[in-house]
Amino acid sequence: MARSPFEWIDEQARARSRAGLVRTLRPRPADSALLDLAGNDYLGLARHPEVTEGAARAARTWGGGATGSRLVSGSTELHAELERELAGFCGFESALVFSSGYAANLAAVTALAPHGSLIVSDAGNHASLIDGCRLARGTTQVVAHADPDAVRKALDTRAGPAIVVSDTVFSVDGDAAPLTALAAACRDAGEAGETGEAGKPGRPGAALVLDDAHGLGVIGDGGRGAAWAAGLAGAPDVVTTVTLSKSLGSQGGAVLGPAHVIDHLVNAARTFIFDTGLAPAAAGAALAALRLLREEPERAARARAVATALYERLTAEGLEAVRPDAAVVSVRAPSPEQALRWAAECRAAGLAVGCFRPPSVPDGISRLRLTARADLTDGQVDRAVGVIIEARR
Amino acid sequence: MARSPFEWIDEQARARSRAGLVRTLRPRPADSALLDLAGNDYLGLARHPEVTEGAARAARTWGGGATGSRLVSGSTELHAELERELAGFCGFESALVFSSGYAANLAAVTALAPHGSLIVSDAGNHASLIDGCRLARGTTQVVAHADPDAVRKALDTRAGPAIVVSDTVFSVDGDAAPLTALAAACRDAGEAGETGEAGKPGRPGAALVLDDAHGLGVIGDGGRGAAWAAGLAGAPDVVTTVTLSKSLGSQGGAVLGPAHVIDHLVNAARTFIFDTGLAPAAAGAALAALRLLREEPERAARARAVATALYERLTAEGLEAVRPDAAVVSVRAPSPEQALRWAAECRAAGLAVGCFRPPSVPDGISRLRLTARADLTDGQVDRAVGVIIEARR
Repeated sequence: MARSPFEWIDEQARARSRAGLVRTLRPRPADSALLDLAGNDYLGLARHPEVTEGAARAARTWGGGATGSRLVSGSTELHAELERELAGFCGFESALVFSSGYAANLAAVTALAPHGSLIVSDAGNHASLIDGCRLARGTTQVVAHADPDAVRKALDTRAGPAIVVSDTVFSVDGDAAPLTALAAACRDAGEAGETGEAGKPGRPGAALVLDDAHGLGVIGDGGRGAAWAAGLAGAPDVVTTVTLSKSLGSQGGAVLGPAHVIDHLVNAARTFIFDTGLAPAAAGAALAALRLLREEPERAARARAVATALYERLTAEGLEAVRPDAAVVSVRAPSPEQALRWAAECRAAGLAVGCFRPPSVPDGISRLRLTARADLTDGQVDRAVGVIIEARR
Repeated sequence: MARSPFEWIDEQARARSRAGLVRTLRPRPADSALLDLAGNDYLGLARHPEVTEGAARAARTWGGGATGSRLVSGSTELHAELERELAGFCGFESALVFSSGYAANLAAVTALAPHGSLIVSDAGNHASLIDGCRLARGTTQVVAHADPDAVRKALDTRAGPAIVVSDTVFSVDGDAAPLTALAAACRDAGEAGETGEAGKPGRPGAALVLDDAHGLGVIGDGGRGAAWAAGLAGAPDVVTTVTLSKSLGSQGGAVLGPAHVIDHLVNAARTFIFDTGLAPAAAGAALAALRLLREEPERAARARAVATALYERLTAEGLEAVRPDAAVVSVRAPSPEQALRWAAECRAAGLAVGCFRPPSVPDGISRLRLTARADLTDGQVDRAVGVIIEARR
């Protein structure tokens, strides 16, 4: 009898089961009673009536889908409006919207790292940036996490164009990248040319490509993002990617940067050219959330304050956590098994928390991953802290 | 003065401009008067009131976004319902929904082609399958377009597991893959084991991974897709990917296959694990469209009939076109410049058609790409044919 071509899958499944690392989907109801500190709805806007009405209105006006790729039939005036307002809010010249942050990251890295170029990539970068590096024609050099000196050293080796790629806020530990030092490393890699007609032309610096998925809506003046906070928004050598699915409570992603760079992506980025445009409902929800954020800038500061409160309360109880730079609070667990049990105990007590275990964590350390939300009350923070401490025992 | 790190981009832009290959976004209004033969809304469902209400209701019930990755907070009962009904409709055991067809293809190829495996990939495959091959740890062998003998030869060289990857309907020319012959090639690559305890264990066949983006809703009994039509749906060695953004008028993608393969994707596919879940509005729109398709199976046949009518009328007028196997009708143009001018003339006369030029066409041949829609009237088909013929002159 013929053997299954998927036998190797069953072997892997058995190994995963033995190691206690099986992942299972757990569909949630619409009216869950759980207090959610697991999702990335940092500003609590996913269920805001203006956001859900923005989605509903867009679907009615523009249809259930974009009907085609952005360059064929999938660009509506709604997409253009979202791109204009997003670029304006974050302080960049232009923006280009994608069906996901993953697709935006693949686009930015592949389109900006051609054959012969160097990509310098932080060891803690998100999977989508790593996949972008693997897909790009340029050569990737992975450098130690949050280490501008390592970036400088890596840039010394380049012959052609170079980009430095980093999350602004790392998704596992919630720590911020040293943006000012990274930008300086990029710029110092350039050499001024000599003046006069016979002068040497100099060498361009490296470009800085930042994934601000966890920064938009949380960091910077009114949530304008990490590049804005670092004085890098709108710089001619800085490109930022964002998601519409976290602070903006919707789905999708975007690349922000100088207009000629965005035009280049329209012409060269495969995940832009060969993907269907973002659904109108997602564009409408994101646009509504962006306008709310502009009108209520205090949401950003509240998300950060809730994160700090969680961190301070939990470490005061003896837990080991990373001081949050945005809305993600990462608490260490002794082992994958204990992390899983701890998270399950929290859930049993009415609190949803994230549980990051290998192979999702590059350093092998398991964590509870808590996310602050701007709409959490002080009472809910109290309750969350109480449950986490109690569930650890 | 420091030079820009993006100078090379400006050089590429100038080269593109000289070659007449600049791509520009053209956002459309909500109430365009153009007759659309460019989008992929094959069944005309994107603006169906049940589909747009499905999106609106889902946004109100579940929020503007899924709030997190599917394994953390992004799986709702709506996602599970869509997955159940999609698998059932297409005749597969299980389904897994992604934020795009692009992400679904990256997931299927990368998760099913581990280190040491062979990927046999049709030369005409979609960009997302090609990127999946490039990201996968397995080794890729590209074979001639729609050539089962070439697939057999490639499979002879393998040592470990193998997958054969193909579009079911190729997006540029609208021609169908030889699915029955491909499945036979996959199965013949296996060797039966000898019976008895001392018998040789035999060798597994290759698995067949099909991208049915242009088949779902158009091909097979009531639009159940190309795998169904070929008697391959639900087979233990067949995996299909689909989009929710074409016939289903929404956004997103899915992988359909045996339950243990889908479980493997949940545990191993990076574009599943590290991406935010599909927005509820997109899931709701796709589910509404799927139910319409089940209730009105004649939509699939009508889309095919419109495509055939377009093909027959245009070739009768002396145009060179590929006989359509689904809803895509590809008409050859003499040059990129003439394709562009031809499409522009059509647009000026009120007809939107796709225009595929290098580098989007692997063979360098420019085309007008027309898409049939089930909701086009005979009068609209007349008008479209008239405009295309007139615009050619």
